Amino acid sequence: MRETLEAIRDGRMDVEEGLARFRAWPVEDLGHTQLDTHREARCGDAEVIFGQGKTPEQLVEIARAALEHHERLLVTRATPEGAARLCAEIPRARHFPLSRTVTFEPHDGTPAHGLVLVVSAGTSDRAVGEEAAVTARLHGARVEEIQDVGVAGIHRLLVHTRKLQSARALVVVAGMEGALPSVVGGLVDRPVIAVPTSIGYGASFGGLAALLAMLNSCAAGVTVVNIDNGFGAGVAAALINRA
Amino acid sequence: MRETLEAIRDGRMDVEEGLARFRAWPVEDLGHTQLDTHREARCGDAEVIFGQGKTPEQLVEIARAALEHHERLLVTRATPEGAARLCAEIPRARHFPLSRTVTFEPHDGTPAHGLVLVVSAGTSDRAVGEEAAVTARLHGARVEEIQDVGVAGIHRLLVHTRKLQSARALVVVAGMEGALPSVVGGLVDRPVIAVPTSIGYGASFGGLAALLAMLNSCAAGVTVVNIDNGFGAGVAAALINRA
Amino acid sequence: MRETLEAIRDGRMDVEEGLARFRAWPVEDLGHTQLDTHREARCGDAEVIFGQGKTPEQLVEIARAALEHHERLLVTRATPEGAARLCAEIPRARHFPLSRTVTFEPHDGTPAHGLVLVVSAGTSDRAVGEEAAVTARLHGARVEEIQDVGVAGIHRLLVHTRKLQSARALVVVAGMEGALPSVVGGLVDRPVIAVPTSIGYGASFGGLAALLAMLNSCAAGVTVVNIDNGFGAGVAAALINRA
Amino acid sequence: MRETLEAIRDGRMDVEEGLARFRAWPVEDLGHTQLDTHREARCGDAEVIFGQGKTPEQLVEIARAALEHHERLLVTRATPEGAARLCAEIPRARHFPLSRTVTFEPHDGTPAHGLVLVVSAGTSDRAVGEEAAVTARLHGARVEEIQDVGVAGIHRLLVHTRKLQSARALVVVAGMEGALPSVVGGLVDRPVIAVPTSIGYGASFGGLAALLAMLNSCAAGVTVVNIDNGFGAGVAAALINRA
Amino acid sequence: MRETLEAIRDGRMDVEEGLARFRAWPVEDLGHTQLDTHREARCGDAEVIFGQGKTPEQLVEIARAALEHHERLLVTRATPEGAARLCAEIPRARHFPLSRTVTFEPHDGTPAHGLVLVVSAGTSDRAVGEEAAVTARLHGARVEEIQDVGVAGIHRLLVHTRKLQSARALVVVAGMEGALPSVVGGLVDRPVIAVPTSIGYGASFGGLAALLAMLNSCAAGVTVVNIDNGFGAGVAAALINRA
Amino acid sequence: MRETLEAIRDGRMDVEEGLARFRAWPVEDLGHTQLDTHREARCGDAEVIFGQGKTPEQLVEIARAALEHHERLLVTRATPEGAARLCAEIPRARHFPLSRTVTFEPHDGTPAHGLVLVVSAGTSDRAVGEEAAVTARLHGARVEEIQDVGVAGIHRLLVHTRKLQSARALVVVAGMEGALPSVVGGLVDRPVIAVPTSIGYGASFGGLAALLAMLNSCAAGVTVVNIDNGFGAGVAAALINRA
Amino acid sequence: MRETLEAIRDGRMDVEEGLARFRAWPVEDLGHTQLDTHREARCGDAEVIFGQGKTPEQLVEIARAALEHHERLLVTRATPEGAARLCAEIPRARHFPLSRTVTFEPHDGTPAHGLVLVVSAGTSDRAVGEEAAVTARLHGARVEEIQDVGVAGIHRLLVHTRKLQSARALVVVAGMEGALPSVVGGLVDRPVIAVPTSIGYGASFGGLAALLAMLNSCAAGVTVVNIDNGFGAGVAAALINRA
Amino acid sequence: MRETLEAIRDGRMDVEEGLARFRAWPVEDLGHTQLDTHREARCGDAEVIFGQGKTPEQLVEIARAALEHHERLLVTRATPEGAARLCAEIPRARHFPLSRTVTFEPHDGTPAHGLVLVVSAGTSDRAVGEEAAVTARLHGARVEEIQDVGVAGIHRLLVHTRKLQSARALVVVAGMEGALPSVVGGLVDRPVIAVPTSIGYGASFGGLAALLAMLNSCAAGVTVVNIDNGFGAGVAAALINRA
Repeated sequence: MRETLEAIRDGRMDVEEGLARFRAWPVEDLGHTQLDTHREARCGDAEVIFGQGKTPEQLVEIARAALEHHERLLVTRATPEGAARLCAEIPRARHFPLSRTVTFEPHDGTPAHGLVLVVSAGTSDRAVGEEAAVTARLHGARVEEIQDVGVAGIHRLLVHTRKLQSARALVVVAGMEGALPSVVGGLVDRPVIAVPTSIGYGASFGGLAALLAMLNSCAAGVTVVNIDNGFGAGVAAALINRA
Repeated sequence: MRETLEAIRDGRMDVEEGLARFRAWPVEDLGHTQLDTHREARCGDAEVIFGQGKTPEQLVEIARAALEHHERLLVTRATPEGAARLCAEIPRARHFPLSRTVTFEPHDGTPAHGLVLVVSAGTSDRAVGEEAAVTARLHGARVEEIQDVGVAGIHRLLVHTRKLQSARALVVVAGMEGALPSVVGGLVDRPVIAVPTSIGYGASFGGLAALLAMLNSCAAGVTVVNIDNGFGAGVAAALINRA
Repeated sequence: MRETLEAIRDGRMDVEEGLARFRAWPVEDLGHTQLDTHREARCGDAEVIFGQGKTPEQLVEIARAALEHHERLLVTRATPEGAARLCAEIPRARHFPLSRTVTFEPHDGTPAHGLVLVVSAGTSDRAVGEEAAVTARLHGARVEEIQDVGVAGIHRLLVHTRKLQSARALVVVAGMEGALPSVVGGLVDRPVIAVPTSIGYGASFGGLAALLAMLNSCAAGVTVVNIDNGFGAGVAAALINRA
Repeated sequence: MRETLEAIRDGRMDVEEGLARFRAWPVEDLGHTQLDTHREARCGDAEVIFGQGKTPEQLVEIARAALEHHERLLVTRATPEGAARLCAEIPRARHFPLSRTVTFEPHDGTPAHGLVLVVSAGTSDRAVGEEAAVTARLHGARVEEIQDVGVAGIHRLLVHTRKLQSARALVVVAGMEGALPSVVGGLVDRPVIAVPTSIGYGASFGGLAALLAMLNSCAAGVTVVNIDNGFGAGVAAALINRA
Repeated sequence: MRETLEAIRDGRMDVEEGLARFRAWPVEDLGHTQLDTHREARCGDAEVIFGQGKTPEQLVEIARAALEHHERLLVTRATPEGAARLCAEIPRARHFPLSRTVTFEPHDGTPAHGLVLVVSAGTSDRAVGEEAAVTARLHGARVEEIQDVGVAGIHRLLVHTRKLQSARALVVVAGMEGALPSVVGGLVDRPVIAVPTSIGYGASFGGLAALLAMLNSCAAGVTVVNIDNGFGAGVAAALINRA
Repeated sequence: MRETLEAIRDGRMDVEEGLARFRAWPVEDLGHTQLDTHREARCGDAEVIFGQGKTPEQLVEIARAALEHHERLLVTRATPEGAARLCAEIPRARHFPLSRTVTFEPHDGTPAHGLVLVVSAGTSDRAVGEEAAVTARLHGARVEEIQDVGVAGIHRLLVHTRKLQSARALVVVAGMEGALPSVVGGLVDRPVIAVPTSIGYGASFGGLAALLAMLNSCAAGVTVVNIDNGFGAGVAAALINRA
Repeated sequence: MRETLEAIRDGRMDVEEGLARFRAWPVEDLGHTQLDTHREARCGDAEVIFGQGKTPEQLVEIARAALEHHERLLVTRATPEGAARLCAEIPRARHFPLSRTVTFEPHDGTPAHGLVLVVSAGTSDRAVGEEAAVTARLHGARVEEIQDVGVAGIHRLLVHTRKLQSARALVVVAGMEGALPSVVGGLVDRPVIAVPTSIGYGASFGGLAALLAMLNSCAAGVTVVNIDNGFGAGVAAALINRA
Repeated sequence: MRETLEAIRDGRMDVEEGLARFRAWPVEDLGHTQLDTHREARCGDAEVIFGQGKTPEQLVEIARAALEHHERLLVTRATPEGAARLCAEIPRARHFPLSRTVTFEPHDGTPAHGLVLVVSAGTSDRAVGEEAAVTARLHGARVEEIQDVGVAGIHRLLVHTRKLQSARALVVVAGMEGALPSVVGGLVDRPVIAVPTSIGYGASFGGLAALLAMLNSCAAGVTVVNIDNGFGAGVAAALINRA
């Protein structure tokens, strides 16, 4: 901005062009989606494509366009067909079927700093946990996972106490009664990001029970993301880990 | 019933009187409330009066009528005025202000059998826990209480593991995220009755969050009563304890 | 624990090994799910596998691993394919299609003690009732069932009054308005476990109407489990029956 | 209308007056509320004033205006102050404090036809039951009440079976689990109007539990009105009774 | 009952048999469902089978058993396959595909008395309206239907005012904002049974919007049944019409 | 009306015919749906057919009947099969697959006045935006669209500020947190119609989150339509644009 | 902006000052609230103060500050004390107690253009209607009100049909079932803004029933604002009226 | 633990004492509440007392006990009476009336590191923002606040962009539509903790609207705490800031 003003002062740019510049934002139109090509510079993060509802053709086209401007790309909620097509047509695609994610990274991978710990309560919560783990890793975090440590077998969790306390940020994933983040939050003095999952039936109401439980956690320092939103938790954990 | 039929067969009773008898049920009318005077015989339990919305005068009148047929009487949700009046006008009344209960027992008390353990998560959950404890004791159970063992300080609970495992039935009271019954349920092989409380704010929605969490408990053997329903939990625990 | 401390005192065990022992918990990793191999000893209960969302292959693998440590195994929410595969590949599998359960028991069966009575309101509630019945039986209870005794034909229920009063614990299953547990609870002085089902339409909201009705039951001694949770009710009833 | 057209045809009325007549509706403006003075003729019913939110002065003014056109007047949800003022200032006012209603009738009362039976489950449901009873009587029905016949003591209800079957229409009032209308509906072949009350606590959610239960009643022939809406039930029952 | 007592008095029956008779209720077991064979005598109504969730084979078997005791039979929520099978295998079956009902009547039909008017707001509400109409007719009512008279074109409704006022009972069916019963209720002095339908999208929440609107109707005399419950409305209307 | 009265006065029409005329409303019966053939005259708008739940045959029949009385016709929520059939069988049909709309216009199109701006937040919100745009255009508005301007990249929206301020009415479409209408509403002094979409997952609850957010918008001048109701927003915007 | 750039080009302003200007926004800090003093110029509207939760002292201070920059000021949700203080201390204050609004206008008032019609269903809805009317008038609209035209007495509304059709924008206020906007929307071809009120009881759930009904209105062209939000409706109507 | 084992090995401690030690947890009983006196050591944080529902006497007693073990103490939700009593009786108490907090710090205060930025949308959201700010500061963070930057005046927020980007963690507080965290989240690459407030009316449902909006934020990196939970947000932000 200063540069533009100086150019106008110096007569190197006329007023009309200055006005146009101020109005020109780094936006590129692809027909489907506007890509903000400055984002990686601004945030140092990977570009992300939300795969749900996109055809395999659209996915490939958008991914190719994104990879012209970014070294790292994450596709979430990829359909099996979309993932297969991405892997077949674009080099270095890596598919994680459990979490329905596809990643693209440079040849030398992504540097891994700090430690984000992803803890999931039940077998069925692993998919969401993996989405958080893949996301955090692609945003520059070293990631480890602890699984099957539901609160009804509290000793399974307690054996990991030291590990829990070594993380910079924790993502805790649980469905049903959503109690795990409260217990973990009481064991550590680090930020805990709670992810409710839609695992459960009847009065779980698609994850609402776990969501409400987590929002009412008696452990201070616990924050919450949307139901099944492993991606959001992974980004938040990576941001904390990076600080 | 057999007796009546035999009397009819033997001509000691005519048909009209027989019909009338079949229709006559043990019900007595007091103006305010019909009292079922057979209940103690049938259930072996104390008579119970729900105090809320009743004037001190009504409370005293109903309690007096009940004590003509019962040795033990429990008044729940008594207003301070109602409790004071009961204590002033009827002998052997005992008031528990925290839980808003008033009890009446014979001179030699109530025999205490087995063990019902009432566990409450936070300071604010104690009132509901006391209602459960008073109720269970008046229905013939030996009762102990463990307090302030919320899941965010899990070690506070774990020191009581042996005690927890010694109960015949457990009442576990918690507000906020309502996680305590799941943890307790995983430590014992006894029936756990979960009581959600309305303690909490915001998205606790008056205890809904804790209620849903408890209904979705991953610990099998946990059953749930209504929000703040210490009385119901106490009755259920006493019934289990008595079996 | 005492044993370990004595071994350390006596020099038979060094401190490092003692520390390791304290940290070593009875946990075994199978890739899919951690199995707690001490549970049967602790609880005297069958191992349980939640079948939903597992492939037939996973089911067989997990069931085989469990049967190495347990004599009795219960698979709930088994898909037809999963159930067929279990019956084909593992001896002594028994399939209950209505309730989607598969059981494994020793040659001489499971001893049946006491009496758990499973009462269901409508034809459609039977599946959930059967899940409760199968579960309670596999946890050591003698079980009987009463069916099609909805409250709109109250006489159908009343003919069973004596039977109802003979049970140690009752499981009462109802959808729609969920009124049956209140009526049953008024007829017996035993613990009643209410199971709301998702049977109904419109404003039943997937069982919410029945759930709320049961939580608000005017009959003391009624506790509630999650919608369609016949399994949880069966475990709780067996625990009460065993006491 | 025919009359007006004939008058125009015969030249007894000009077109402008005819147009005006078609547009003139029987509406009178009082400042607070438009009174439809034709209603009694059309419906044969009492005029009704909703008392809530009106000052004693407004109540008296509106009641006086109404009584110029109607012989019978019903004031619902009257505040104690409003009721007292009405009784003090207008002759033949009769106050029912439990249901917060005030009635005005001609000297020779209101003829009472048929039979509307108002059945209420608990002591606390009586106020709503009385509102229904007062309303139905003022709309020309003979009314009887049965009280304290909750479903947890089913025998209390069953002794009234013959009486229940003798009514032309039944109003059944219940809070908490709202099960009574289903049981009553199974005992009679007459229309049953169910009134949920806000009696209850916790997960009764201000009467929502009872409302949902009644809407899901398994007894055909049961219809439902709003929570605590004794007035609406009374009107509907009177309309059925009159048919 | 009197008969039995007299027989005992007269020595024509011994006490044991008398006891047995009192306990023997008219209940027959078919494996799937207990049929109450006394119902028609008691209620004068058709037997009803809820078709949803039943196989064609079950439907035919239950229908045949019911027709041994009843002259009139109504099957609701019949699947196309079930309806086809009923029509193919049992004489006098009549299928109404829009409302998914199948009826069985005697050769000389069912006498039609009074007038039940079924009014539906939109094209999509007709199916529920037809269920109400078929049900009411099979329960002895003369039935007429008025269709496509939504409140946004109020003149379409007003042309039917005289017809509306001629009915003994009205069933008013509407989805979306559910406003029609209020308008109809203001035009007639007859009982109006409102049926919310699940027609609508977004914030209609499966008919909840219409249900709440109808429960809050400002027109007195309106009662409500469950969402899409044309059957319940038809039974209630027939009961009113018969009175 | 005056005309009819004058004819009666002048003896050119007899009273019976006058009565008939007053009762004759412009309504035509097609079997499926009553068409109000006066609507275009009254409203100056296109006829609209709601396609959902109609067979291709019904759609074609209703569309043909409508086109006899209207020049412009809009079919919303058309199934792919229905749209294909309409395009194949009726001239000048135009299909917009994204929004599932089909339009029919005169050869010389529809005059376009003023400016309605349709702004959508995310890629997935475009379908609803297109429905609004097509609807507004067919009701006589000039329409432009701005897409992919979600609030998390606020600069993408701000570049369009001048364009936003040039519209007569704005339709703002957003799912997820539904924040866009508040931001747009703060930038313009024109009426903003907010359309929540069902885009989102978990606690979006099918668009409820966006709906509530929009209803609580802190920007005055924002009004809201139902979830995914692009059609309703388009009509409202066209009415405003026309004023 | 152009002006600033030209000044820089011409050397009349240096770059630092230009940068500062771009960053300087028209914002003034009063301690309590930032006032945007450019708003009237931008929007041509009155300044608005939300009175709820502010002390009389704060209200007076904020109002005085606002009146330095604005000729017209609207205070909504003023407490009685706050309103009295404003009237006592600031000239030309005008208090509307029913709607809890206070207005300030220039000596020659506010020009009144077009016609906004505010229609309210019941007596209790008038307060919200007045808030809408006062707001619209202060934003430059000529306003008229129609009251007590609930849908259960549809003829009361129909006499106003011509008046309804003469407005540029309509605000329709209703509680309970919220049906009035649908009926009005069917009578006019103008934008209708529906305002649900919290009037009602039981299942009105504080206005939720009316809100949902309005969102599901079958009349196209109806848009909705928040419960009791007469202010928002008034602003939107004035914006439409002005167009 | 190792120490204890070594003492046992070395014979300096016998087995019984070792067992006792393992069972002895750092818990102290005060009658009202168990205080965990090790917490500050473990977490480096202030002790916190939840003031709501405690009498002034209890508050002073608990605070005194806590200050024996902690240098810093935070009392939240203090009643005015409780706060006054604390300030009168204990030195160095500091009261923040807007947020109802009272703090106790050592003479030399609390070191302030990093930067936590607390951003609040409206005037009414400041109280919750202050609770977050006070909490974060007492947990060791340097804190700044930005106020009155609601999204409907987006330029007020944008002038702070550089400041926003300089924080280590941001707490964003908003009621009504809760849109601010999404906009802020799009401007920074730091963790954003969103706090919904109960500010709003009607369909805000006590903060539910803002809560759902924040959970559905389209800006990755946003996590959410309970409604009005400034304390929880402050703790989480301080933990992130400290990392």
